[in-house]
Amino acid sequence: MPGKILKKKELNLVKKIRQKAVTLAHRAGQGVAWPLRLGIGDDAAILGCAGTDQELLITTDLLVEGAHFHRQFHPARALGHKVLARGLSDIAAMGGMPLYAWLSLCLPGWADEKWKNQFWDGLFRLARDCGVTLAGGDLAAGERFAADIVVLGSVRRGRALRRRGAKPGDIIYVSGYLGGSALGFDRLRTARWSTRDPAVHRHLYPSPRLTLGRYLAQELRASSAMDLSDGLSIDLYRLAVESRIGAEIRSADVPVFPGATLDQALHGGEDYELVFTLPPRRKSPTAFQGIPLTSIGVITAGRRLWLVDRAGRKVPLPVKGFQHRL
Amino acid sequence: MPGKILKKKELNLVKKIRQKAVTLAHRAGQGVAWPLRLGIGDDAAILGCAGTDQELLITTDLLVEGAHFHRQFHPARALGHKVLARGLSDIAAMGGMPLYAWLSLCLPGWADEKWKNQFWDGLFRLARDCGVTLAGGDLAAGERFAADIVVLGSVRRGRALRRRGAKPGDIIYVSGYLGGSALGFDRLRTARWSTRDPAVHRHLYPSPRLTLGRYLAQELRASSAMDLSDGLSIDLYRLAVESRIGAEIRSADVPVFPGATLDQALHGGEDYELVFTLPPRRKSPTAFQGIPLTSIGVITAGRRLWLVDRAGRKVPLPVKGFQHRL
Repeated sequence: MPGKILKKKELNLVKKIRQKAVTLAHRAGQGVAWPLRLGIGDDAAILGCAGTDQELLITTDLLVEGAHFHRQFHPARALGHKVLARGLSDIAAMGGMPLYAWLSLCLPGWADEKWKNQFWDGLFRLARDCGVTLAGGDLAAGERFAADIVVLGSVRRGRALRRRGAKPGDIIYVSGYLGGSALGFDRLRTARWSTRDPAVHRHLYPSPRLTLGRYLAQELRASSAMDLSDGLSIDLYRLAVESRIGAEIRSADVPVFPGATLDQALHGGEDYELVFTLPPRRKSPTAFQGIPLTSIGVITAGRRLWLVDRAGRKVPLPVKGFQHRL
Repeated sequence: MPGKILKKKELNLVKKIRQKAVTLAHRAGQGVAWPLRLGIGDDAAILGCAGTDQELLITTDLLVEGAHFHRQFHPARALGHKVLARGLSDIAAMGGMPLYAWLSLCLPGWADEKWKNQFWDGLFRLARDCGVTLAGGDLAAGERFAADIVVLGSVRRGRALRRRGAKPGDIIYVSGYLGGSALGFDRLRTARWSTRDPAVHRHLYPSPRLTLGRYLAQELRASSAMDLSDGLSIDLYRLAVESRIGAEIRSADVPVFPGATLDQALHGGEDYELVFTLPPRRKSPTAFQGIPLTSIGVITAGRRLWLVDRAGRKVPLPVKGFQHRL
């Protein structure tokens, strides 16, 4: 979703697109049977459907050679996995159940039969594990590999998790350990590696938190949530923009992936864990199905992000995660 | 859709993906509220929805720099138009009403502010004209421009036009005039041109046949249909594969765009007209809202494509339209 991209220039672009899109929606007055309940700016769009208590979630996620991955570091199987995992993670972040996927694929000349077979294997294995059916797509030949995945999921009406909804005083939680993917990518680039290395595995084969997402939506009723695709600091910033709030994170409480640095945990992308908020009266358990859930800070009214370091000093949280230069 | 791509190698790839996808669908047993009524292999997928008499159409269409367009020939505004028009044409080919679109965009460094503004203008103008709301997407920076458009539309249950359904004896019709886009592209590349040149305009600003598509689905009840994105010969071949039939085209009856050659009309892509079939007892009018509807041949049992030339000789129709080298 465009909302994933940040900083003045990008946010202005998204704002402009959004305004135009909203104007159109009002003018069109269509789609009464399928009202658009949430458009641009979250992990997925929400469509209503007259006659059911379910809503549709739709997300699209683009992965481009050079920008999101490098051929020399990313095996074909891992790439197939990651393409789908990114879309599934958006559905997880909304608390939904993924149903169908569409894949648009631009294949360059270097992708030979073996490479393509491994790519499909990686993608279909994850699809099978998550019960997702490939319902279509598009194929093209081009100079650079590009893959756009569309995932459609369902969620009970009104229960989807959104970025908007966090209130001052809400407690901020993250799932799992952060920084593992950044550490794994460092190891991929600099040393001999094995997919049995947990950090490398985390980078190459991220697990979309689908079951956790549904638990947060249906049982815990999180006040807001999103997935950590580009890094805690930048993604929290996006959540803050949508919820019109600020946040205070305690660095000592951030669950750092074994071997990773605090910097990687705060700013490294592609962990695909979930960040979510709960009103203070509703406590989160410390884990869900073996995935730790850790309180790392609190939502504030001030619309700025702060980091409280181990010495108790409060400093502005730098927003440094992955972003495209647009 | 993968079904758009042809020839042994590509068809085998699509077949392989399709088999895996179907196996998954059976295994998953999910999506009962949103059953997948049609998956890979047509212009769009069809989803049912419990509790309504409407079905959802979903299509995704990838446009890649170098493969589908060239920056020096295609103005930004025309490109914005074309990206959306391609997706809308798929919805038209299914007889649907387009509702929402998602756009994934990879922007290279050469795309400056002016270029981007014109691109959005072209896209939003067509969206407004067709009553489509942009509901989300994804943005990335990369080396080559790429745009993947997802369009979601609706159609009355059971009324969607499909590629499968043509029967021997059915009459084959096409809308409008063919070869104009190929002629326009030639002029773009070789001469000074104006968008007022009808052929250039046809190439840069194709009109998705949305109203015609709904008429074919609801009133004429066409037995099969698809849009002409890559060329009559290759697209008819795809329809023949899905319907498991053959076809015989009379070259004298092919409506050639003024100034274009028969070769451009048979094999030139990007006209975005519709080809459809009707049982012989149901006649098509000769035009619909000013768009000519021309009978060009007949469906045969033989599973081969034939061309009857002006001298009455029957020769195999060469399948030569645009295809990606995969």
